[in-house]
Amino acid sequence: MQRIVVIGGGTGSFTILQGLKKYDIKLSCVVSTADDGGSTGILRSEFGVLPVGDVRRCLLALSDNTGTLNKLFTYRFGEQLSGHSFGNLLLTALQEITGSMESAIREAEKILKTRGKVLPVTFDDVKLFAELETGAIVKGETNIDVPKHNGDIPIKRVFLEKKAYAYHKAIEAIHNADVIVIGPGDLYTSIIPNLLVEGISEAIINSSAKKVFICNLMTKYGETNDYAVQDFYNKITEYLGKPCVDHVLYNTNSIPKELLLKYAEKKQFPVKFDKTKKITGTVEFIGDDFVNVTDIARHHSEKLARKIMGLG
Amino acid sequence: MQRIVVIGGGTGSFTILQGLKKYDIKLSCVVSTADDGGSTGILRSEFGVLPVGDVRRCLLALSDNTGTLNKLFTYRFGEQLSGHSFGNLLLTALQEITGSMESAIREAEKILKTRGKVLPVTFDDVKLFAELETGAIVKGETNIDVPKHNGDIPIKRVFLEKKAYAYHKAIEAIHNADVIVIGPGDLYTSIIPNLLVEGISEAIINSSAKKVFICNLMTKYGETNDYAVQDFYNKITEYLGKPCVDHVLYNTNSIPKELLLKYAEKKQFPVKFDKTKKITGTVEFIGDDFVNVTDIARHHSEKLARKIMGLG
Repeated sequence: MQRIVVIGGGTGSFTILQGLKKYDIKLSCVVSTADDGGSTGILRSEFGVLPVGDVRRCLLALSDNTGTLNKLFTYRFGEQLSGHSFGNLLLTALQEITGSMESAIREAEKILKTRGKVLPVTFDDVKLFAELETGAIVKGETNIDVPKHNGDIPIKRVFLEKKAYAYHKAIEAIHNADVIVIGPGDLYTSIIPNLLVEGISEAIINSSAKKVFICNLMTKYGETNDYAVQDFYNKITEYLGKPCVDHVLYNTNSIPKELLLKYAEKKQFPVKFDKTKKITGTVEFIGDDFVNVTDIARHHSEKLARKIMGLG
Repeated sequence: MQRIVVIGGGTGSFTILQGLKKYDIKLSCVVSTADDGGSTGILRSEFGVLPVGDVRRCLLALSDNTGTLNKLFTYRFGEQLSGHSFGNLLLTALQEITGSMESAIREAEKILKTRGKVLPVTFDDVKLFAELETGAIVKGETNIDVPKHNGDIPIKRVFLEKKAYAYHKAIEAIHNADVIVIGPGDLYTSIIPNLLVEGISEAIINSSAKKVFICNLMTKYGETNDYAVQDFYNKITEYLGKPCVDHVLYNTNSIPKELLLKYAEKKQFPVKFDKTKKITGTVEFIGDDFVNVTDIARHHSEKLARKIMGLG
């Protein structure tokens, strides 16, 4: 049976996992643990538990339980309970009951009947920092994700406050994979934080797996202003430390004008394929219709999954 | 198959349900909804949901799920989350998702694989009031349960702020029962609040079921100071409106002195059988060893259940 590992954490991972879980494969997801905002941030600082938001999202994407437990997991309380997601509270309680995030996730996988494993990239306490082109340092994932006054200044690099070491099962999954899927997701706040953990980039480079990067549909203000497909690829390669991505999937289908206008208000624009840009290494760029347009533009989980399964 | 209904709500119901669920019977529990303290009180006032604490306790007592979900259900968060019980949050979320407490309980029964039904006595919003012998009115279940300065003044009567009507399935269960078990539990704050709901006492009186009252082990300061077994029975009969209890089970086994001293500090004393007291109606008083002594004195679930099942 084919083994596929998805590396990411945010809503992008949710999308691709939902597509891939329909295939008869061994699926796992390596999840960033840099999140420090919202419900997750509160639980992280008040309970000292590991970040639960991205883990929850991936568990849910892999869940085969279509009943009430699934609905519960996505339910969000009102302000009275700090807007906590029920799933986050469940993961927090499980961490306290079982004594570890590792056991908590295994229990949640059983409860949700997941078709795959969720593997936090590390159990070390990580804090994500960004250095801007001006030299200024932005501290914390949320402050990078939602820029305050520095959205126009490009990010020079992101790094972890202190070294963190990879979860051995994440390394194992990458090592044994037939396909490694990087992304889709916010470049500096969801994808690269995984590559910053000691052992991960090395494991990807050394794995004999086919490596696929799924490029973002839209640029993200404050993170990837004006980035082309090639810029995304180059950054991933830079943080991996060596060119090793075999295929880059990027969307070529158009997005309706009204929707583009909405995005433009948030200074977000479609990611273009720009042949004039130099790239490092050799890689196959595959442009195709990968978009699913509703009131927002998201990757199309089935189309992406079908393409990945067909790369064989 | 024999149908048994337990009427109560608090930890006493938890005990008797745990004993009875081991028998091959149709078991249900009619639960008071007067609770307005602690985690339940906060959720009740902030989310406008029905009280969940006693429902949670009975669901757990009936649960056949011995795994993590059971542990989760009893888990209590720290002060950061107002000391909420995870089970209470789950029931609150289920009420919001399913749109009703009724559906929420049915879903929770499935999740916990309960061996029996939990039936709130009413879905109306109830508030319990007590009139003391001095004429003073104490408002709210928690204020009656944990008296402030009035613990020495006897309760003259308890009543609901406004009329509440019984849940039709609670009436049905009482109507169809072979045995109705009233108690054990705090007389004025767990047991009688059920009898104050329109339709319940009448249903009990008119049911052809055998009616058993399980008398408390200890008096409760501020509620049942100096009460003998006969006083408990008389009060139950008074609130039922007519003598109809067939058997009263009371404990005759002794409680260790050290433990009695601890209880005495809280002005709680063993409930005595007092032949000199007059009773209304005819009833069989059955004294036996029904106590389970640990660091506290509780009813013994197996001994109680065995006696009830043997009442023929």
